[in-house]
Amino acid sequence: MKSVIGKNITLALYGESHGSAIGIVVDGLPAGIKVNTGFIAHQLEMRKPKGKISTQRCEADEFAITSGVFNGCTCGTPIHITMENKTQRSGDYQPNLPRPSHADYAAHVKYNGFEDYRGGGHFSGRLTAPIVAAGAIAIDILKSKGITIGTHIKKCQHIEDRGFENYAEDIALCNSKYFATLDETAGESMQQHIENIGAQCDSVGGILETCVLGMPAGVGEPYFNSIESVLSQYLFSIGGVKGIQFGKGFGFADCLGSEANDAFEMCGDKVITKTNNNGGINGGITNGMPLMFSVAVKPTPSIFKQQDTVDLEKKENAKLQLKGRHDPAIFHRARVVVDSVTALALLDLLMGRFGERWLCE
Amino acid sequence: MKSVIGKNITLALYGESHGSAIGIVVDGLPAGIKVNTGFIAHQLEMRKPKGKISTQRCEADEFAITSGVFNGCTCGTPIHITMENKTQRSGDYQPNLPRPSHADYAAHVKYNGFEDYRGGGHFSGRLTAPIVAAGAIAIDILKSKGITIGTHIKKCQHIEDRGFENYAEDIALCNSKYFATLDETAGESMQQHIENIGAQCDSVGGILETCVLGMPAGVGEPYFNSIESVLSQYLFSIGGVKGIQFGKGFGFADCLGSEANDAFEMCGDKVITKTNNNGGINGGITNGMPLMFSVAVKPTPSIFKQQDTVDLEKKENAKLQLKGRHDPAIFHRARVVVDSVTALALLDLLMGRFGERWLCE
Amino acid sequence: MKSVIGKNITLALYGESHGSAIGIVVDGLPAGIKVNTGFIAHQLEMRKPKGKISTQRCEADEFAITSGVFNGCTCGTPIHITMENKTQRSGDYQPNLPRPSHADYAAHVKYNGFEDYRGGGHFSGRLTAPIVAAGAIAIDILKSKGITIGTHIKKCQHIEDRGFENYAEDIALCNSKYFATLDETAGESMQQHIENIGAQCDSVGGILETCVLGMPAGVGEPYFNSIESVLSQYLFSIGGVKGIQFGKGFGFADCLGSEANDAFEMCGDKVITKTNNNGGINGGITNGMPLMFSVAVKPTPSIFKQQDTVDLEKKENAKLQLKGRHDPAIFHRARVVVDSVTALALLDLLMGRFGERWLCE
Amino acid sequence: MKSVIGKNITLALYGESHGSAIGIVVDGLPAGIKVNTGFIAHQLEMRKPKGKISTQRCEADEFAITSGVFNGCTCGTPIHITMENKTQRSGDYQPNLPRPSHADYAAHVKYNGFEDYRGGGHFSGRLTAPIVAAGAIAIDILKSKGITIGTHIKKCQHIEDRGFENYAEDIALCNSKYFATLDETAGESMQQHIENIGAQCDSVGGILETCVLGMPAGVGEPYFNSIESVLSQYLFSIGGVKGIQFGKGFGFADCLGSEANDAFEMCGDKVITKTNNNGGINGGITNGMPLMFSVAVKPTPSIFKQQDTVDLEKKENAKLQLKGRHDPAIFHRARVVVDSVTALALLDLLMGRFGERWLCE
Repeated sequence: MKSVIGKNITLALYGESHGSAIGIVVDGLPAGIKVNTGFIAHQLEMRKPKGKISTQRCEADEFAITSGVFNGCTCGTPIHITMENKTQRSGDYQPNLPRPSHADYAAHVKYNGFEDYRGGGHFSGRLTAPIVAAGAIAIDILKSKGITIGTHIKKCQHIEDRGFENYAEDIALCNSKYFATLDETAGESMQQHIENIGAQCDSVGGILETCVLGMPAGVGEPYFNSIESVLSQYLFSIGGVKGIQFGKGFGFADCLGSEANDAFEMCGDKVITKTNNNGGINGGITNGMPLMFSVAVKPTPSIFKQQDTVDLEKKENAKLQLKGRHDPAIFHRARVVVDSVTALALLDLLMGRFGERWLCE
Repeated sequence: MKSVIGKNITLALYGESHGSAIGIVVDGLPAGIKVNTGFIAHQLEMRKPKGKISTQRCEADEFAITSGVFNGCTCGTPIHITMENKTQRSGDYQPNLPRPSHADYAAHVKYNGFEDYRGGGHFSGRLTAPIVAAGAIAIDILKSKGITIGTHIKKCQHIEDRGFENYAEDIALCNSKYFATLDETAGESMQQHIENIGAQCDSVGGILETCVLGMPAGVGEPYFNSIESVLSQYLFSIGGVKGIQFGKGFGFADCLGSEANDAFEMCGDKVITKTNNNGGINGGITNGMPLMFSVAVKPTPSIFKQQDTVDLEKKENAKLQLKGRHDPAIFHRARVVVDSVTALALLDLLMGRFGERWLCE
Repeated sequence: MKSVIGKNITLALYGESHGSAIGIVVDGLPAGIKVNTGFIAHQLEMRKPKGKISTQRCEADEFAITSGVFNGCTCGTPIHITMENKTQRSGDYQPNLPRPSHADYAAHVKYNGFEDYRGGGHFSGRLTAPIVAAGAIAIDILKSKGITIGTHIKKCQHIEDRGFENYAEDIALCNSKYFATLDETAGESMQQHIENIGAQCDSVGGILETCVLGMPAGVGEPYFNSIESVLSQYLFSIGGVKGIQFGKGFGFADCLGSEANDAFEMCGDKVITKTNNNGGINGGITNGMPLMFSVAVKPTPSIFKQQDTVDLEKKENAKLQLKGRHDPAIFHRARVVVDSVTALALLDLLMGRFGERWLCE
Repeated sequence: MKSVIGKNITLALYGESHGSAIGIVVDGLPAGIKVNTGFIAHQLEMRKPKGKISTQRCEADEFAITSGVFNGCTCGTPIHITMENKTQRSGDYQPNLPRPSHADYAAHVKYNGFEDYRGGGHFSGRLTAPIVAAGAIAIDILKSKGITIGTHIKKCQHIEDRGFENYAEDIALCNSKYFATLDETAGESMQQHIENIGAQCDSVGGILETCVLGMPAGVGEPYFNSIESVLSQYLFSIGGVKGIQFGKGFGFADCLGSEANDAFEMCGDKVITKTNNNGGINGGITNGMPLMFSVAVKPTPSIFKQQDTVDLEKKENAKLQLKGRHDPAIFHRARVVVDSVTALALLDLLMGRFGERWLCE
């Protein structure tokens, strides 16, 4: 259960950055669901490095579905999605000089020196491509149930995007963009900033904010599988994510209960809350309001500035000068990964509540 | 797998606030481990409400271990720990008026009106008592392996505690106190502040910061069971926790890679990092540095100020005036719960790595 | 996940034969299901030792439900059922002399000498009492969905019962009896035989056959969670069960395909099979025909005849003369345990297919 | 968790008989284990149809390992093994006429008519090829720990093989043969019999018997993950397996306790049993004696004799005349599949006991 997750929809991820192929098995989807390969391709396109703000390594990300889909629909058995690696340049990597803040050293200890160190191996951002492919199927299913997901780049250093206002429109806006800010000017400033930082051989972090619209109330499995518990397990598997908060999150520490509580009111026949400080979750269960959370993504650890490290063979201090192809920022690409794991996590919980038949109704 | 968690050490939690008993089954501990009932009692004491900053409901928290311990040691079979509820006052609760930001309404939808609404039922803070009892066993085991855990109250509104300095000493300091701040004056100010807020019929949130010392490098199960993924699943099951960050966390969004990266250096034969912005975790695996994370705890939603809510029967807006016994703050009590689930989560991961024999060596 | 089982309905079993209490946590039942405590008591009564064919240790098996049931219905949170042990006579056991074919020696190795050896500890037949209590709830739920389960004693040495004929009537007949044979005379002969064998300080084994009527077609989760896989995992956890066969089972080895295959035919609008050699299962999935399987139960290993064993302390051969209270046969008591785990296993699979809402419809 | 199994070594199987590829992800093997691709190829060869006793469809079974192996050793991340399907002849299948005793009809109901009916889809015997590939790695690891596995064909209708005598030699003998009987003459008779039956357009079943030598005492995870529980879950996932018995199994019903019990005795410093009626398992835990079990394999349901079935579209009775390529017997090919899942199941249990480090010692 290391690279396997999910109770009702179980994912098994495999692959290394410089191996021959990466892929994912998606087990548990009921039969009879249309699989939209165009949308999978679209989502992979949104994850790809592009322009001066991304790595110059560009994989085609052509995927093949080798099982589980028959006549365009799920046939109820595991779906296997695979992609070949094609542009490996393994010579760029020095196994004895671990890159600071990368998985290199920790993996070296865990795997007793047998790790595939080339390009970060299993820890490479490349592994998010199969996740995005699987996520695309989940996003599509949720959409058919009236549940939509959107993530924007809330913050990159001093530059901040505006928050969600009109949820449905803003979610659509996020999903229409490669560099997903709600405010166009903020987005341009951020991209310019990333480009400048990249030119300085450095990298930069950011915060993503996600909104899920249309989740029915009553979903979540406390005690230990609260909405927050389940989502955070999925989200923290994305490389570079180092913080998560739901609703006001860390801002709650500055609040009084009277300010923080979300008062209920009737809206026609429906119970809603006047504010949504809790991000649509009470007691680990959805309350029918928009699900809101944000994640912190650290700066890409691979920078071209010279860094201090150690030589694992010689057991002495050393200098590291990276070569190769690296992103000055990854949060804009992580955006679609966040949507993907969010969809997969919520789909799993929804299936537990409503059964597999519900998905095909 | 709702109130069940853990792969190697599996916990099954049960109970409601106003039921006859609450408890936990701890399955998977190898045989031959001394069970220190004195320490369990001590930890439960640290979780209890005390003084003017806590609820006036005070349960004795007398626990019985009815299985899994034989002649003072684990005998390899599930340990069952149970506690009776004795001071229920169920009359204080009105099932048709959900308390804002409590589980009440979401649970009402999830459980179709069959929920045990009395005192929050399964969502009550009382359920953390069995978790603390189980956690005490785990903390004790980790201690015998040289791994110690300490959590302090980092922030309560405008009042901030100092950070960890000397890790070992500061962890001991945290564990010696009921209201665990590292700075005595900050602690007194916070307690006074909570008391004042309580007197105003309101409540207040805070941030807890945790340090784990002595974790060997190489522990964690990426892709989906990274240290962050596993810890966050456990931590978000604690009621009121709405945010988690590892190392610099959300602060990474303000950083350049060159500032954020933790350079390696040799310290004698050992590889260490010069800074610890990543909180002892790289690629979801421990790197041998202190594990550092913080969690945001929202203000207790139960306040004595009148609040707006809805009447679920009449389907109309209503006013809510709480009676009963409630905490003006819970983060100081949540502190020991954080330590407990941290110990249980890490023990599970350590057992996967080193096997059950290791624990008894 | 040692004494924990189940994906949708998760059981956590605890207790030792001579500890203070035994019990079970049942996690995952949806809210709103009536809990029939009378039926639980009835099922426990069917499991109790009675007459000259059973052990003279007779526990009251009074159970308490301390959580998860509110106003007579499940409230959606874990149900905890507990029973005190009252008639322990621990002095009867000699830890250094393992009883042949009992768990004693294997447990001694597994638990490094820390096992609770008294009365078999966690391996005692007593542990089936909480399983029967949990199973009673599951049997009751299935009944409300038109699914009934019956098990009879098919064989005890040379004495054989008749097979199922009229399924519905025969299931009712099984459930009306303590010593469940379909043929009254066969039952009397078996009981007389057991009594005789007991008088000779010996014990005897048997075969139980189970029929489940009303299972809808299409249930089962191949590849690895076929009906056979799931049922057998539950059934082999019952102490003494050493074989399982579905439909014709081992008899298939004597068959040609043309004899073994169950031809389909229409019965009104319904697809049925002319024969049921496959016991209602094709490809690991129910086909709508009665589910049929049988299990082999070995003779109780605790016999009063003197036996050869070893002295684990002295590391030398030794003689064992058991004292205490033991059953000359257990299959007639295991019958209700088989029904219980069958119901729990099937309920888990049905919930995966139809969702938790289905159970409350 | 449908086509996913295993706690420490998790398998995710995918593929359909007539899809483009089949494969398996093996997650959880520690780093540093040599992967013997020659042995994988050998085991696949042993599973292949051969001669007149098997189907004429013969896939090359060329496999590719696309991840998890680096420089010839496991690198600690998931191993993905894939094989292309090359000789599909889908035209042979009629989706509206379910084959008696095949998965066809049950799958049709479960998957609401969206199943991939071609060649049995996910239920095809082809899916055992990736299992055998994964199993080969496990068998190899166990061998390095002194644990060997052998399975022979015990019975095919009236023809019986001799039982295991000299365990080590007989295990080697099994593994040296394609048609694995211990007695050469019995093997020849069986093969002739299968050929004759095949010529009559019919098929035949059999019983396989397995011996595992070298398992240390103390392995198994009662209550619910006893050796029998775990092995049976794996073994019943193999298509056609309809019965399992451990040790004497169903023969226990004919025994007295005094005949059935395995008396202990010292053999030098070691505790052994004089007989091994319990097949090396007491209380669900290994006792150090050879692990012995047998499984019943039903006759292949695909026969060329005309059969009665129904037309699922027209909802009326129909006749079925199979075309295509089918095995008159599969138990001789299932033999290596039994060894494979046995190795995978035991490896999972051993890892829980000894930790991942043990495998690499």
